[in-house]
Amino acid sequence: MIKVGIIGGTGYTGVELLRLLHCHPEAEVVAISSRSLNGKRVDSIFPSLVSLCDLIFTLPDDESLYHCDVVFFATPHGVAMESAGAFIEKGVKVIDLGADFRISDAKEWSNWYSMVHTQPKLLSSAVYGLPESNRNLIKNANLVANPGCYPTAIQLALLPLLSNKLIDLSNIVADCKSGVSGAGRVANQSTLLSEAGESFKAYGVSGHRHYPEIKQELVTMAGSNVGITFVPHLVPMIRGIFATLYVDLLDESIDIRPYFENTYSDEHFVTILDDGVYPETRSVRSSNYCQISWQKIPNSSKLVVMSVIDNLVKGASGQAIQNMNIMFSLEEGAGLNQIGLIP
Amino acid sequence: MIKVGIIGGTGYTGVELLRLLHCHPEAEVVAISSRSLNGKRVDSIFPSLVSLCDLIFTLPDDESLYHCDVVFFATPHGVAMESAGAFIEKGVKVIDLGADFRISDAKEWSNWYSMVHTQPKLLSSAVYGLPESNRNLIKNANLVANPGCYPTAIQLALLPLLSNKLIDLSNIVADCKSGVSGAGRVANQSTLLSEAGESFKAYGVSGHRHYPEIKQELVTMAGSNVGITFVPHLVPMIRGIFATLYVDLLDESIDIRPYFENTYSDEHFVTILDDGVYPETRSVRSSNYCQISWQKIPNSSKLVVMSVIDNLVKGASGQAIQNMNIMFSLEEGAGLNQIGLIP
Amino acid sequence: MIKVGIIGGTGYTGVELLRLLHCHPEAEVVAISSRSLNGKRVDSIFPSLVSLCDLIFTLPDDESLYHCDVVFFATPHGVAMESAGAFIEKGVKVIDLGADFRISDAKEWSNWYSMVHTQPKLLSSAVYGLPESNRNLIKNANLVANPGCYPTAIQLALLPLLSNKLIDLSNIVADCKSGVSGAGRVANQSTLLSEAGESFKAYGVSGHRHYPEIKQELVTMAGSNVGITFVPHLVPMIRGIFATLYVDLLDESIDIRPYFENTYSDEHFVTILDDGVYPETRSVRSSNYCQISWQKIPNSSKLVVMSVIDNLVKGASGQAIQNMNIMFSLEEGAGLNQIGLIP
Amino acid sequence: MIKVGIIGGTGYTGVELLRLLHCHPEAEVVAISSRSLNGKRVDSIFPSLVSLCDLIFTLPDDESLYHCDVVFFATPHGVAMESAGAFIEKGVKVIDLGADFRISDAKEWSNWYSMVHTQPKLLSSAVYGLPESNRNLIKNANLVANPGCYPTAIQLALLPLLSNKLIDLSNIVADCKSGVSGAGRVANQSTLLSEAGESFKAYGVSGHRHYPEIKQELVTMAGSNVGITFVPHLVPMIRGIFATLYVDLLDESIDIRPYFENTYSDEHFVTILDDGVYPETRSVRSSNYCQISWQKIPNSSKLVVMSVIDNLVKGASGQAIQNMNIMFSLEEGAGLNQIGLIP
Repeated sequence: MIKVGIIGGTGYTGVELLRLLHCHPEAEVVAISSRSLNGKRVDSIFPSLVSLCDLIFTLPDDESLYHCDVVFFATPHGVAMESAGAFIEKGVKVIDLGADFRISDAKEWSNWYSMVHTQPKLLSSAVYGLPESNRNLIKNANLVANPGCYPTAIQLALLPLLSNKLIDLSNIVADCKSGVSGAGRVANQSTLLSEAGESFKAYGVSGHRHYPEIKQELVTMAGSNVGITFVPHLVPMIRGIFATLYVDLLDESIDIRPYFENTYSDEHFVTILDDGVYPETRSVRSSNYCQISWQKIPNSSKLVVMSVIDNLVKGASGQAIQNMNIMFSLEEGAGLNQIGLIP
Repeated sequence: MIKVGIIGGTGYTGVELLRLLHCHPEAEVVAISSRSLNGKRVDSIFPSLVSLCDLIFTLPDDESLYHCDVVFFATPHGVAMESAGAFIEKGVKVIDLGADFRISDAKEWSNWYSMVHTQPKLLSSAVYGLPESNRNLIKNANLVANPGCYPTAIQLALLPLLSNKLIDLSNIVADCKSGVSGAGRVANQSTLLSEAGESFKAYGVSGHRHYPEIKQELVTMAGSNVGITFVPHLVPMIRGIFATLYVDLLDESIDIRPYFENTYSDEHFVTILDDGVYPETRSVRSSNYCQISWQKIPNSSKLVVMSVIDNLVKGASGQAIQNMNIMFSLEEGAGLNQIGLIP
Repeated sequence: MIKVGIIGGTGYTGVELLRLLHCHPEAEVVAISSRSLNGKRVDSIFPSLVSLCDLIFTLPDDESLYHCDVVFFATPHGVAMESAGAFIEKGVKVIDLGADFRISDAKEWSNWYSMVHTQPKLLSSAVYGLPESNRNLIKNANLVANPGCYPTAIQLALLPLLSNKLIDLSNIVADCKSGVSGAGRVANQSTLLSEAGESFKAYGVSGHRHYPEIKQELVTMAGSNVGITFVPHLVPMIRGIFATLYVDLLDESIDIRPYFENTYSDEHFVTILDDGVYPETRSVRSSNYCQISWQKIPNSSKLVVMSVIDNLVKGASGQAIQNMNIMFSLEEGAGLNQIGLIP
Repeated sequence: MIKVGIIGGTGYTGVELLRLLHCHPEAEVVAISSRSLNGKRVDSIFPSLVSLCDLIFTLPDDESLYHCDVVFFATPHGVAMESAGAFIEKGVKVIDLGADFRISDAKEWSNWYSMVHTQPKLLSSAVYGLPESNRNLIKNANLVANPGCYPTAIQLALLPLLSNKLIDLSNIVADCKSGVSGAGRVANQSTLLSEAGESFKAYGVSGHRHYPEIKQELVTMAGSNVGITFVPHLVPMIRGIFATLYVDLLDESIDIRPYFENTYSDEHFVTILDDGVYPETRSVRSSNYCQISWQKIPNSSKLVVMSVIDNLVKGASGQAIQNMNIMFSLEEGAGLNQIGLIP
């Protein structure tokens, strides 16, 4: 049984780790920290856990966390950066659900997060944890940077097109839509039900922190520079990300299905839909799957690719567990066999 | 043209006053205050008002407010208590949308609001502003205590039964349900869309601040003591209150329709539904109407009465404007002719 | 491995059985029928199942269903009544998620369902499948009538009070609230998002089909007649039932906690909350748990008891699987270890 | 007082006409038809109208409709095509909220609506009713084709760019999102709250009926051919359309604000937001306004333009009334002075 610790377990990715790991056959959460809730029962904060979880929140430097096999950081940016090193030195593997190790260029990171990156050495040892493109590196990693939610949905939609050089790299549009849980559990006027309910809006149009992560990974996939316009929007629902990608095929007559099928034939968590079937976020609600489909626009080079994930599962905690499974040579889908919640 | 001021215009009752008064033929908002937003444009806070409102937030002691004919207090409890007197002395009528003048017993008020009531004299001059039961007093009032949202829905449902002594006063149950806007616009974890959305819960079961107001007014209507159990619940929607009242008829065989029709025959904003038609909150969304119906339970003395209002209109800002119209001898429905928003 | 069949698998209880049984370690769905979708792939109807389910809808008299160990009827009323007998004769156990075998009085059933009950003998052999009150009978049953959603929430809230004779039986009020999925997956104007969204209403106030079931079981628990007023309401959300029960304690001074704790000490799926903690439907969303708490009203005999379930899990498919587990001597919680989905 | 008739008043655009015209100072609905509800009271179908509307549904050929000054067709496609002529011959002006007269090429219309266009002559006399681009023609029209909801949002966002030839016409992407009321009031499985709630999806990606209308009008504005990719999505909310347009500026360095301000300086219902402010659909909920803003993407020719409308108001019934006002030389905003409903 793998011993798991969670640093900063009071947000949605924290409770999602608890929910998913509860059903994991070979891993068990043995410690969970929260500065503000130190000493409180976990089930007093998350009522879904009453009678199902005996954990008590500790301080983040509690000894119990260092006796784990792996710790997940579910913390605001800047925290994992400072603390991850101490765990790795003691042989505890680290998976950071935050942004601290996603951008390989420390200076670029600093620009977007208004904070100096103090651990450039650690950063250079981190592996970007998208299993579908980085599985082999993840296997041997001690520090995994779990991808952001938007970047996950966008990369999985574009990977077959970029790695096979099928599209014009200079003109990619990613129009993305997210449920409100992506904004976290902290009290915030703009995500009150009375503000975000029954309304739809764009945000971060002038620049969103996921942009450099998206760009970095697409460039790696394409092996050359990429011009992408990324606009996130807020949907009046709790969970789910829908990415609509607009790209131009270099050859209008090409059949792209084989490229998607080849890329994902061995990927358990990526599902290619039939022609004419478009994804819905509910199909993957509470599950770790990504569903993808596309539509070629007639008399045009334009191709529309659509992908959906649950932002808290494949877009955060589920993918983190998938990474853990890979790092510990467990079955990759262990603990992740839940089906999407319909209705 | 009546000159209107709003004290504390940054919450939902404030913007609702602006929305409704925008269509009022004989009243105009000329000043609006907010300590925190002093100097800011009102339409920079409420995007529905862009190009439709030129007001700038002032401080609450700004001279312009004292030149109004009437000011609405849309403030947290304790504020109107301290400031209303100064307005009334200068001949400005005051309508308080908060709780400071609703409970006539200052000590009782202090118990529920954990604050000494410093203005017992002012309190004794205040008129409780439910037009359907207090119209004549409102006409000549200088200070009106606008009723709470739950108390409005409950009183209108019970008035014909209490004033005609048709029910057992010792066993009234008021199971009430409210949309989330009743909790206000202040950032609060429990009313985030991710927390309050797609869920239903009870709250304040051990004691809600509207309880003493409800009890006080029902006792007045009944002319005798009343035993009422009041349980509020939170509905995953923005606007609306639904009150389900369970009472025991003293005479099972009585036809209660005439009592309701007589009570409300001249009331423009109370609508009695046909037998077998039950109210829905959406029927009165954005409007000042209250819709009421009931069902007699067969082989039992039990009667179920149901009423709906929009908590921000008849339950707050709309009723406040109705009170203003009465106080200034305008047509009672002026500015309030909007129909419920379906769908 | 227990072989499971589903008759009428095109609705929400059908897909919920598929979702839950997908994670069941000792049961497997091998056949599923639908007259209208005969020959179609199941995952073409439920997109959450794409790549996870290879089943094809058959006709309801398909041979494969008779080779199962157990069949679930997820059909409109009247269907299981006619078909269950043939399965039982061949040694296939039957669990009916519909209403055909819930009411032991065939005439009463006929009154509420406007249809003659053609199988009174089968009806008399049926066991009412609430494990918390009928576990021993369920163990040996060949035909289980799975309880309705409202009846489940109400019974679990009242069982300790009734079986210990703590309350006035003549004056019980059950004010219940349900998500819209309770109305099923059939196209219906009144449950369109544009009609049922952002609104709250009562329905079936003059008589709901769950009433005779509730009454029958409460009378059995109490061992004497019971007077109950039951009003269901529709909540603008997908899943969840919240029951608010108003009862009068015979002895105001009694501490009821021990009675609840004794009744449910060995019940895995019933959770008693701490004093002052009230349930929320989201705490049990997607899970088989029922959470219960209560509040004594001061200076009164009134007790408010609150319970929550997921109408599609403990209120339907989850409870049906719990019954199956009991009938086949499996671990009672097998396949049901999912935690509620928060957020 | 202008006498108004409504043909086919049982859907959302019908009740929206009733809601808005209720506050119109110079127009009054005197007749409303519905084949299926002939003889029924209008307020028995729309509970928001109880006590506020005495109309009875008639048959569509009822004499009363021919005595109107104007009739609105709120009917499925094909109905207005057959019936409009008879009204126009008798001097009754016609505004069609449906699609029958929007596409000037009868053959193109037939392709998209799978129906022969039987009235090519009438079609050629119809005026496309977008006041912001066609006001002068609308003034003298006897037959106005009220624009579709998506086309309205898209055209208002692009008009200043197209008419001033600022963008590359070959590469326009319109990623649009609509609330569910756009799908109408007819019972439909895919728009049940349990299906469309808490989920986001694309639809009509391979071809939506609004596409030829969008293309036709953009071509007119541009004075040359236009290549546009249009993808509509369904948002889990009732009202609102959000259009996100991606275009390439011919001159990256240009300041586009003056072009928007010039185009809309005299347009009461189009609001240009400040830099850095992005629209939200709720800002125009229940109102006839369109709010627009944009963001230039740095180091790129890409410009993102965003617009919002209420699909039932500016996208349907409100714009129809605006057209009526123009046709009858009334104040253009008469009956349309409601402010967006926040919250």
